[in-house]
Amino acid sequence: MLAEYQHFIAVDWGTSHLRAYLCLAKANEPLTVLEQANNLGVKKIETDFETTLMDSIAPWALRFGKLPILMIGQIGSSIGWKETQYLTCPISPTEVITAGTRFDSQGHQVIIFPGLSCQLYNQLHDSMRGEEFHLLGWLAMAPQHLIGRHLVCLPGTHTKWVLIEEGKIVLFKTALTGELYDLLSSNSVLIQEKVSDLEFDFAAFIQGADFILSSAHDNFYHGLFSVRSKQLFEGYSTKQAHAYLSGLLIGCDVRAAMGAQEWQLTELASVAIIGPPHLSQCFIEVLHHCDVRTTLWDVTEATLTGFNVVYQHALQSTHD
Amino acid sequence: MLAEYQHFIAVDWGTSHLRAYLCLAKANEPLTVLEQANNLGVKKIETDFETTLMDSIAPWALRFGKLPILMIGQIGSSIGWKETQYLTCPISPTEVITAGTRFDSQGHQVIIFPGLSCQLYNQLHDSMRGEEFHLLGWLAMAPQHLIGRHLVCLPGTHTKWVLIEEGKIVLFKTALTGELYDLLSSNSVLIQEKVSDLEFDFAAFIQGADFILSSAHDNFYHGLFSVRSKQLFEGYSTKQAHAYLSGLLIGCDVRAAMGAQEWQLTELASVAIIGPPHLSQCFIEVLHHCDVRTTLWDVTEATLTGFNVVYQHALQSTHD
Repeated sequence: MLAEYQHFIAVDWGTSHLRAYLCLAKANEPLTVLEQANNLGVKKIETDFETTLMDSIAPWALRFGKLPILMIGQIGSSIGWKETQYLTCPISPTEVITAGTRFDSQGHQVIIFPGLSCQLYNQLHDSMRGEEFHLLGWLAMAPQHLIGRHLVCLPGTHTKWVLIEEGKIVLFKTALTGELYDLLSSNSVLIQEKVSDLEFDFAAFIQGADFILSSAHDNFYHGLFSVRSKQLFEGYSTKQAHAYLSGLLIGCDVRAAMGAQEWQLTELASVAIIGPPHLSQCFIEVLHHCDVRTTLWDVTEATLTGFNVVYQHALQSTHD
Repeated sequence: MLAEYQHFIAVDWGTSHLRAYLCLAKANEPLTVLEQANNLGVKKIETDFETTLMDSIAPWALRFGKLPILMIGQIGSSIGWKETQYLTCPISPTEVITAGTRFDSQGHQVIIFPGLSCQLYNQLHDSMRGEEFHLLGWLAMAPQHLIGRHLVCLPGTHTKWVLIEEGKIVLFKTALTGELYDLLSSNSVLIQEKVSDLEFDFAAFIQGADFILSSAHDNFYHGLFSVRSKQLFEGYSTKQAHAYLSGLLIGCDVRAAMGAQEWQLTELASVAIIGPPHLSQCFIEVLHHCDVRTTLWDVTEATLTGFNVVYQHALQSTHD
């Protein structure tokens, strides 16, 4: 039983990053995070999944022995460790609580939670793994969103735009924005050198977003090369080129969301952004540029609240 | 003097590939290519440029001694060996003949020819290196195109769409189509395994192109993820996913060319395709789907004809 433990380990293991949290849980209280550990994402691990996980949690296992490990994200996908199901939308995110895949890993009780799938208006399918927990936590943090129609944007390696109605996730759309940025800024002909993450040229970012938002739709595809030509012919520095590329990609992502037939973005009061601070700020700037209001939520807080909802459920179950 | 030599080496050294040809030239005759050698492109070389070149031509240097080496492509760019200028459009491609940068490499006389640049209607700049030689050769092979207005498509790592009027290159637009395909099929979450180049699923390719051409403009950005979701939910094989991705990307490239304000594609009699056979065929299928007629030209033949125009000019100069 999970509830035998006061401590547990929460793991958000996505495509690009593993983020593990040593948590202290008490009935009817928020989680306390005692420590955090980071490691490589599902697409980037150098050994196997079990070794990577055990390396990440080794100091905690040494102190607390065997602990329950709750995992979400791509780790449960076809490119992950154990493939878990996709639950079908529309669905309340609370339904993931009881649908995890349980197994033992070196004596630790592991649960990998399922993802969600939906079918879009154009018949294509979409899927998420991990974001359903962020949404679970967000709805617990801000339960006023259990009523009415809301659009949530979760920026990251794969941006998710999620339509929520009366507390149910109705459908969602994925954009590869973060992954495209990584691929194009590290491996393409567009940019030759890396820059420090600290150096972000906001003016060049806005130029990139402006170019997309003010030009014909197909200009993205034949305009991407301008990341290079601005360095060759307009004296752009590498730092400016990185930010301009980010502006092009986030501009396209927002424009696609503005045009999505699945929701009428301009009819919604605001878009809730749940993401890391810097990336969220970039999306907010572009959305404000399009006269769309936003509310901002911290992704780590939402995720941990999601884990707490699950753990509180386990504690409740014990006392029933 | 170049013309002292009957043999010379022609090198098309692009981002992804080095292609070297041992050529036999005679006044007023087509080139004879005696041998071909391939090596790594400018973005991919493992040692330095000089070593890579000398390795590629070593057997020919052994037999013929020092030979002139004529080079085109990204090797003359800011990420190449010696940066050569960009000549400004509108320009006749014959103007590149006398504008090469000459230097000595281990006793071989090397000439790297310049690229071209242009400014588009949206004020962005664009640039090419190598394709100006393909166009030089094509205009020599098919001089009827020296009169009138023509659109040429050169598929490759970077697709170039080139507007030619009265034998001059007026302007052109670049799309990263081939590079995006390589990045997304090898390094992204969309596809997990490589497939043999021989296995191309044409039906899946057409599905990808159809999806783009029949859907709203912004569906590309939020539709790219369908390469993965079709494998998860519609039973697509890896082979189908590769071809579908290719269809999405080439569909976008063609649609952007259809919408370009720099030319009215539907008012042109046909589009001339100069590329490698498989890739050209893909572009032709999508263009025909859009009711655009095409003519097909072999890129190697066009390139070598371009080199022959240069060499014939050198021979003429000697006899003047």
